Amino acid sequence: MANQDLLVYRDKIDAIDEQILALLSSRAACAKAIGHIKQNQTVAMPFYRPEREKAVLERLMDMNPGPLPDKEIRRLFREVMSACLALEMPMDIAYLGPEGTYTQAAVLKQFGHSVNTVPLRTIPDVFKAVQSENAHFGIVPSENSTEGVVTHTLDMLLQSDLRICGEILLRIQHNLLSNAESLSAVKAVYAHEQALAQCRNWLNRYIPHADLRPVSSNGKAAEIAATEANAAAIAGQMASDFYGLSILAAGIEDETNNTTRFLVIGNQQLTPTGDDKTSLVVSANNHPGLLHQLLEPIARYKVNMTRLESRPARQAIWEYVFFIDLEGHEHDEKTASLLAEIKRTASFFKVLGSYPVGTVF
Amino acid sequence: MANQDLLVYRDKIDAIDEQILALLSSRAACAKAIGHIKQNQTVAMPFYRPEREKAVLERLMDMNPGPLPDKEIRRLFREVMSACLALEMPMDIAYLGPEGTYTQAAVLKQFGHSVNTVPLRTIPDVFKAVQSENAHFGIVPSENSTEGVVTHTLDMLLQSDLRICGEILLRIQHNLLSNAESLSAVKAVYAHEQALAQCRNWLNRYIPHADLRPVSSNGKAAEIAATEANAAAIAGQMASDFYGLSILAAGIEDETNNTTRFLVIGNQQLTPTGDDKTSLVVSANNHPGLLHQLLEPIARYKVNMTRLESRPARQAIWEYVFFIDLEGHEHDEKTASLLAEIKRTASFFKVLGSYPVGTVF
Repeated sequence: MANQDLLVYRDKIDAIDEQILALLSSRAACAKAIGHIKQNQTVAMPFYRPEREKAVLERLMDMNPGPLPDKEIRRLFREVMSACLALEMPMDIAYLGPEGTYTQAAVLKQFGHSVNTVPLRTIPDVFKAVQSENAHFGIVPSENSTEGVVTHTLDMLLQSDLRICGEILLRIQHNLLSNAESLSAVKAVYAHEQALAQCRNWLNRYIPHADLRPVSSNGKAAEIAATEANAAAIAGQMASDFYGLSILAAGIEDETNNTTRFLVIGNQQLTPTGDDKTSLVVSANNHPGLLHQLLEPIARYKVNMTRLESRPARQAIWEYVFFIDLEGHEHDEKTASLLAEIKRTASFFKVLGSYPVGTVF
Repeated sequence: MANQDLLVYRDKIDAIDEQILALLSSRAACAKAIGHIKQNQTVAMPFYRPEREKAVLERLMDMNPGPLPDKEIRRLFREVMSACLALEMPMDIAYLGPEGTYTQAAVLKQFGHSVNTVPLRTIPDVFKAVQSENAHFGIVPSENSTEGVVTHTLDMLLQSDLRICGEILLRIQHNLLSNAESLSAVKAVYAHEQALAQCRNWLNRYIPHADLRPVSSNGKAAEIAATEANAAAIAGQMASDFYGLSILAAGIEDETNNTTRFLVIGNQQLTPTGDDKTSLVVSANNHPGLLHQLLEPIARYKVNMTRLESRPARQAIWEYVFFIDLEGHEHDEKTASLLAEIKRTASFFKVLGSYPVGTVF
């Protein structure tokens, strides 16, 4: 009886798969046709349009009736678009390696699996690969919500002519894993340096007596904690099963919304999606009230500033440069006139890019 | 005009995506229903059925009208099945780590991305994780077509009660990258040990004068070759662009069909698909003609033997054990009676598993 029911569902699935196959093939044929049109233009047209992809994905998630979670719908259509885009134009994506890191996860989240990915050793190498057109886009870490910015990336953005073509947000959760009987018995905590930093408040509060020991990865940390008495590791939940470690405490990161942000860098100007960010860098000869003067138009226009970073300038003439992220697209009317005002007061002004706001999953 | 055409195709794609979304949701609802039926059985029923998945994928590839290549159709439906299976039963897959290796690529090829993957440090750890039911399946390397078997995996299969539930084949290509002016100028070749072994004939023939230097990965090798005069690396084609190295020779692997094989280990008995392999291990007290005697029935039944490996036995009583792969499923009538005959002449006989033949892509 149960077997009979199973067969009915199996046949149903087979019929559905046939229909999906036919639709995927039509979709791919459309993508190919689009590719031909673009190739025959006298003015170069971009093949990869993150703003269009974002709109497609959000629409489908809005329409999703279940039972597949939105996250899976996003992932599956990401892969469908990736496969179709590869027919239009095979893409090479450079990223800060090595493989198996969060940066690689960010690449796959953004581009799907039908791209060539190339791990490079340094952030400047990634910029160089895109600049020299050895890669269509590059992915570099930008900041995480507790540890702040990756200054190397800011420096490269300042020097380079490349633009920010997108941001990718990844959520990260940490647990304290150990075979120690209780928190008070924990003598040492092993973890990647960044994970230690992301849990600093919690560690100071609950196990101030423990020695904090940075190692090359959280996986490595779990391995050590599995063999060393009274040692603990900060790692994901799964490591607990596999290294036979108990979860002494879950979700110990200081910011519960601990995300890491990555930037997509490229040569492309994107059109507005209605939900965009603009990154810019400004400076002026230093004088008291300079920052206030630079920021005043932003307040007056009632535009949300999502980030402000100051960096000592390398060129002697400015003492500081400011990296600012604003909501809005440089081609939006309001944002455009705000940017024009900021530009008037600044001695240095550069838009790094306008791009769709990233989604956390 | 071109823009008009683009909009038409874009609308068409949007309409197609809506239909795909509706179908994916119905498919997922079927998968959930199947999950309920299976959970309500008194006899445990497997949630993951590699033989069924193989049949589904092959049928769809056969039906594929293009323009998406079969490989992409396979990948997309693999992900669809992965997402649907996660609704039936979230799967944990243990594999020989670290992340970013071919073994991880094999996991994703076989199971898609909607599974929890757990990199472990040793092959016995992977077996232990599956045995203790911390993981549903484990993935271990088995052999590659030029370097032969991974003996550790054979030893574990011999000791363990786990069964082989599948094989995964990955294709690998090597190139010689260098800034040297010609092959004769190359003084040293850097590569992962396995890559050196896989290109040994070619290296002996074309650059017998070069010093072969194993390093931790082919990526590392390319990095070294980019800075050291007259050094070369064995690596994939993309590394040449990114490390600024020329391809002195492409496809230098000795076997052009250089594949690496991985095994899926688990607790499950699979049903026949019509295109299966059976792995077994046999032994007997040593005497002249033993091997011939063991193999004679295979020849008589005209069954294809795809592999034969002998290993010294640990137990003193047998001198050798033989690992044999045959075409056919142990529940096929012909294979079953062949196995019965082999069993009669062997003092030790164990079927390691019957599973669908893997696909090379």
